[in-house]
Amino acid sequence: MITHVAHIGIAVKDLKGSKELFSSLFGVGADHEEEVPDQKVRTAMFRIGETDVELLQGTAPDSSITKFIEKRGEGIHHLSVVVDNIEAELLRLRREGFQLVDEHPRPGADNCLVAFLHPKSTNGVLIELSQKR
Amino acid sequence: MITHVAHIGIAVKDLKGSKELFSSLFGVGADHEEEVPDQKVRTAMFRIGETDVELLQGTAPDSSITKFIEKRGEGIHHLSVVVDNIEAELLRLRREGFQLVDEHPRPGADNCLVAFLHPKSTNGVLIELSQKR
Repeated sequence: MITHVAHIGIAVKDLKGSKELFSSLFGVGADHEEEVPDQKVRTAMFRIGETDVELLQGTAPDSSITKFIEKRGEGIHHLSVVVDNIEAELLRLRREGFQLVDEHPRPGADNCLVAFLHPKSTNGVLIELSQKR
Repeated sequence: MITHVAHIGIAVKDLKGSKELFSSLFGVGADHEEEVPDQKVRTAMFRIGETDVELLQGTAPDSSITKFIEKRGEGIHHLSVVVDNIEAELLRLRREGFQLVDEHPRPGADNCLVAFLHPKSTNGVLIELSQKR
């Protein structure tokens, strides 16, 4: 079951500069920053109510964030939703006809297991399922 | 002050088809649908925890949603955040150097007053401030 929105992921070129920009916009500082080697990104999280806004900078030329920015420029990259059982949700969504990027969960930021659905099957929206470990 | 994320707005071509798609994805039906003549859109809202996912279909060729889809295809269009005092936030953000699309609030969906910040000043993210009337 999908319980709530985990975060909105925003692709940025310069994490340091964007952290200052969004601190000034939201009126609060980032409360969490980490590198996720598996996804070749460095992230900073802003807590806005129960939802986070996650800034993402690629750490390699073949990072999906670096490639996204090359193609579309900076901007909203994905929508992450919290699920109570990620394996069961992947099974359910595959049965419903959704195309999966990840057949099985992999490590994400903030000690979560994550899996992406392909935007081709979700009206152009890259959706991440996320479950706390 | 920004209190929480109001919704994530997704531009779609066919609201009826996308409502079915996202109902199947989220496992819940849309709980609110309305036309916003001022913005030339028809919207459907899905409640996911304290945040909504808002599907938007343009109702005219010069609707910003229709033009967005022509240029970039379907996908995430904007991020809406709830503020307690929209006039005060617009003043604060202008002073902080953010570029405003709307100098003054205008009517939005779900009986809210809304105002947009220009994505040029927010790393390519179209941000909507929203206050319940």
